[in-house]
Amino acid sequence: MTNAIVHYQNRVNNYLKNRLDQLPDDAPNLKAAMKHGALLGGKRIRPFLVYSVGELLGVQPQQLDACASAIECIHAYSLIHDDLPAMDDDALRRGQPTVHVKFDEATAILAGDSLQSLAFEMLADAQNNLTADQQVRMIKVLSKAAGYSGMCGGQAIDLASTDQSIDIDTLTLLHSLKTGALISCSVELALIAANASDEETESLRSFAKNVGLAFQVQDDILDITSTTEELGKPQGSDTKANKSTFPQLLGLHGAKQTADQLINESLSALTKLPYNSQLIADFARYIVARRV
Amino acid sequence: MTNAIVHYQNRVNNYLKNRLDQLPDDAPNLKAAMKHGALLGGKRIRPFLVYSVGELLGVQPQQLDACASAIECIHAYSLIHDDLPAMDDDALRRGQPTVHVKFDEATAILAGDSLQSLAFEMLADAQNNLTADQQVRMIKVLSKAAGYSGMCGGQAIDLASTDQSIDIDTLTLLHSLKTGALISCSVELALIAANASDEETESLRSFAKNVGLAFQVQDDILDITSTTEELGKPQGSDTKANKSTFPQLLGLHGAKQTADQLINESLSALTKLPYNSQLIADFARYIVARRV
Repeated sequence: MTNAIVHYQNRVNNYLKNRLDQLPDDAPNLKAAMKHGALLGGKRIRPFLVYSVGELLGVQPQQLDACASAIECIHAYSLIHDDLPAMDDDALRRGQPTVHVKFDEATAILAGDSLQSLAFEMLADAQNNLTADQQVRMIKVLSKAAGYSGMCGGQAIDLASTDQSIDIDTLTLLHSLKTGALISCSVELALIAANASDEETESLRSFAKNVGLAFQVQDDILDITSTTEELGKPQGSDTKANKSTFPQLLGLHGAKQTADQLINESLSALTKLPYNSQLIADFARYIVARRV
Repeated sequence: MTNAIVHYQNRVNNYLKNRLDQLPDDAPNLKAAMKHGALLGGKRIRPFLVYSVGELLGVQPQQLDACASAIECIHAYSLIHDDLPAMDDDALRRGQPTVHVKFDEATAILAGDSLQSLAFEMLADAQNNLTADQQVRMIKVLSKAAGYSGMCGGQAIDLASTDQSIDIDTLTLLHSLKTGALISCSVELALIAANASDEETESLRSFAKNVGLAFQVQDDILDITSTTEELGKPQGSDTKANKSTFPQLLGLHGAKQTADQLINESLSALTKLPYNSQLIADFARYIVARRV
């Protein structure tokens, strides 16, 4: 499992680094900021899902490189913008200074903007045995998952919910958009690359939905139970920012139970597939077992 | 000419308003901010070019609606982000409070981000007689024009050039990326929609390139010669921000001569086309005659 994660991390990091290195040097500061934001570590959970689900369905990894990199660019841009003083105001990310701290705010805004454009450019450039129809479908799901009806909308609900008491349904909606949309989209990109059947699509969508929410529940748990050193960012930042979290609404024990239940549901969805889905099952278990 | 501009303004505004109205109401504040940024007036020069060049080449306007709206979303997002305190810090745009002033900075960042995603979503959703291959080509040119190799790169060079003395070549590169890339892209989208011939492509690219630069030279001239009331934003803001401009490097008279020369070159490119290109020729003349 850890081997597979590292393998796909290396694969997407190489592809992405290569793509960023190829940018012309007209705006060296912006290029460096994009690289800092996109290449400085990270678990690469979304690329992992693209590759592992795609390979499960018989797609060659080289057909998945652009998808994996594109979704990671969207994730990376969102972190750069979320860390800005006007948003979460975080100085530390993955144990390193955030982009606006290392560069400046204007450059961080532009680096995020450029990484978003690059995500769509990579999907539009992708040619390895993908048809134009597949590319359009991929761009459709990624743009929707990234924008108002997905990640950005979730972030806006998050902002509106800070200092407010919200119920579990609103918190679930918030995270299904803010984090869940991109995690589901990772699986969706693999499904499109594989021209998956309706049965495969249904099972893997259910898997992705449950894993996505479990990921966020575990993130909330780690914000309380982990250390700043482990997290690479300040521990307790949700509480400090007065954000509603699953442990706050359900208690720490209740949140852990919820995460376990979501993972069980994701594993149950996999049993309907006629494949050896050991790797992504292990991944689901890792989501709630991780300390970072 | 004015009639045609108003006609296409109305067309793109209706299409865009309709698209934004259809967004769900999960994040009402973000939706309102996107609408404020995207629908509050503006000349709609890029949509005008999409429609007028497309129709010149025999494309139906309904095949161009998504392109025209997509490129305007990119332009609108860039204005929202450019106006932020960390960038140009402008409180007024088109005579109205800018998005971060009317809402807040975090919402303005997200509104820009969501409008960028929406641009690509609209192109991927576009179906009116466009093939998937055309859609992919459109997304490719738009993402490139919007990102590091276009608008964002130009903006980064602009930031790096503030308070610096730069030469005319750097200023030209800066604007060919910052403003020119999207103006050229408007024409490029129309060329793709029309499956234009090599000759058509060559003439209209030359037209777009010269008009795009002339537009920026005239913008610099207006920053000196127009009034705050006419501009809908503070007059003299380039000088105040200590930015290099064409009048500063060439003198006001020299800048006017350059603008006229660029327009003459754009008109000369049109003479090679076997069509009545009166409308876009008038548009080129309007670019240097406008007071706003």
